Amino acid sequence: MKTRSPLSGVKRQVIKVPAYTLRAYEAEIKVNQNENPYDFPPDLKEETFRRFRERQWSRYPDFVPDSLRLRLAEFTGWQKDGVLVGNGSNELLQAALMVLIKSRTRVAIPFPTFSVYRLIATVLGAKIVDIPLNEDFSYNVGGLIEKSEESGAAVLVINNPNNPTATAIGAEGLRQILEQYSGYVLLDEAYYEFYGYSGIGLLRDYPRLIITRTFSKAMGMAGLRVGYLLTHPDLAAQISKAKLPYNVNQFSLTAAEVALENMDRFRRAIDSVCREKERLGRELSTLPGFKVYPSKANFFLVESPVEPRILFDDLYKQGILVRDVSSYPMLSKCLRISVGTREENDRLLSALRARLSV
Amino acid sequence: MKTRSPLSGVKRQVIKVPAYTLRAYEAEIKVNQNENPYDFPPDLKEETFRRFRERQWSRYPDFVPDSLRLRLAEFTGWQKDGVLVGNGSNELLQAALMVLIKSRTRVAIPFPTFSVYRLIATVLGAKIVDIPLNEDFSYNVGGLIEKSEESGAAVLVINNPNNPTATAIGAEGLRQILEQYSGYVLLDEAYYEFYGYSGIGLLRDYPRLIITRTFSKAMGMAGLRVGYLLTHPDLAAQISKAKLPYNVNQFSLTAAEVALENMDRFRRAIDSVCREKERLGRELSTLPGFKVYPSKANFFLVESPVEPRILFDDLYKQGILVRDVSSYPMLSKCLRISVGTREENDRLLSALRARLSV
Repeated sequence: MKTRSPLSGVKRQVIKVPAYTLRAYEAEIKVNQNENPYDFPPDLKEETFRRFRERQWSRYPDFVPDSLRLRLAEFTGWQKDGVLVGNGSNELLQAALMVLIKSRTRVAIPFPTFSVYRLIATVLGAKIVDIPLNEDFSYNVGGLIEKSEESGAAVLVINNPNNPTATAIGAEGLRQILEQYSGYVLLDEAYYEFYGYSGIGLLRDYPRLIITRTFSKAMGMAGLRVGYLLTHPDLAAQISKAKLPYNVNQFSLTAAEVALENMDRFRRAIDSVCREKERLGRELSTLPGFKVYPSKANFFLVESPVEPRILFDDLYKQGILVRDVSSYPMLSKCLRISVGTREENDRLLSALRARLSV
Repeated sequence: MKTRSPLSGVKRQVIKVPAYTLRAYEAEIKVNQNENPYDFPPDLKEETFRRFRERQWSRYPDFVPDSLRLRLAEFTGWQKDGVLVGNGSNELLQAALMVLIKSRTRVAIPFPTFSVYRLIATVLGAKIVDIPLNEDFSYNVGGLIEKSEESGAAVLVINNPNNPTATAIGAEGLRQILEQYSGYVLLDEAYYEFYGYSGIGLLRDYPRLIITRTFSKAMGMAGLRVGYLLTHPDLAAQISKAKLPYNVNQFSLTAAEVALENMDRFRRAIDSVCREKERLGRELSTLPGFKVYPSKANFFLVESPVEPRILFDDLYKQGILVRDVSSYPMLSKCLRISVGTREENDRLLSALRARLSV
């Protein structure tokens, strides 16, 4: 054994797939990860500490986080047995794919989109069916259905709204897909709070629809990793077998309950982000040579007249971190900019104006 | 699609495998989950809160938790590039198996052992090669090697010390396995702090050895879900592709750092558990008809003269929760009892003495 390579038994598709990496940059203004610019409120932090202080950290979390599931059932209007809670929604996406993907199962993924779908599916042994968005980055509903069916894809992943294009499928398109496509639809609604429309009303009619959501964005909890999944209870029971026991730590479960009890506070922050988004979008559009794609999320995809890498570096030198997405397919001229606070957006706009010499 | 079943696309082996379930019991004395009876110290809780209060919860954790990895590298003496941090060690076990298991890959698992290994491997599509422990629950080193090789198992999972038997393989046996078995050895050292021996010294010579450890037991952090994995850096890089980005929340990362900085405090708690273990073991052995297996961990496997279920119920009525493991193979007469505090152990012993009428 001594002489054997540490890698000779590793699956070939794992070795071939590039890792998901993100260079850690520090900056005063971080508008590169679609995070909520409004932090979890200080009094709710203290409330979380208060509840967690007395609890024994040495004890496992609840085997099934029933009280949070119950709250989520009330919040979403979906049945509790069809709700799973995860360590971020990605864990639940992974668990869902784990029970659906056999060796060489085909998984349809539109592009450009969040790169982790491809990574998860590939590591699990799937063959990816790549389906392009339209040229304006809107979803090509007919194309999605046709190509998913034609290729025999068992699963179609849809990020709605889509990261990094900020485009979305509406109710009608979604229903059309669910009516005409015979596989499972994994609908990642990480940004739905900024969009307003959710596919949740379709769960009852379509037992192969799986919706994931997260507390990372609208709820200001990216650092705490809480997500949830909504689907038919029978399917949820199978997916939960791929979810490890005690997968969410008790602190984050506590914070999530505190957040749900104070939903009105978070709704105000979401409204504020949406108002700033309108303003930021208008202002960005006035920049010479800048193309701003319409956004259904809390970020903008922009096409820059300056090489994205150069603009990225320029902004970074001024303490502003945006996301260079020019390595994504179809996005060679693009950057992604999250909506910050009013002050952050003003700083960004000044820097851009100066750079593009308006 | 409407008419399609939610389950027709789910992998058959997933549907067949029983879920890992644990009925939630409440009890004053919980000695059923091998938890640390000493909680994370109150002043270290406050220190964790202090560090976490100022941090923006709305921001993602560090992409790679480098400061914790560095501390773990110092703590273990293993190189940082070969250290991965996970949402409990089970997540890392799952990630390791995910990159090694192809469809129908054989995975060798001794029995009886922690049931999650089988669950994870089965969900991932593996065929399990079951290898019994000896009758006294010691590891049959020759048998493990022979059966793993014969069956062509790509991975052999060893829990050392083993849950629920509390037995362990020593340095010599482990080296023999690594010398003679040609596959990967996944060594779960969840309880190694109570045993004293770790396979860590073998990592350099055996690049197919993967060690997982946890903060759940000795470090009193079961509620926070932090584990780590040690292996050859090349293999760690591949396993990390199956580990989702931002897999450990920032609060638990913070607590883990605080814990490592105060290792002496935890060592005293571990010593205290080990002393109580000696006493509890001696006392349990005096109970009529009770057989106590020698323990290398923080719990005992005992054979009861009374039907395990009946004894479990009896103790539960008195506010004491033990683990009925009689449904495990080879353990039809057995219960598992974690070492509690002195007071908890005394209450348990009184209850047992009364029940067994000494």
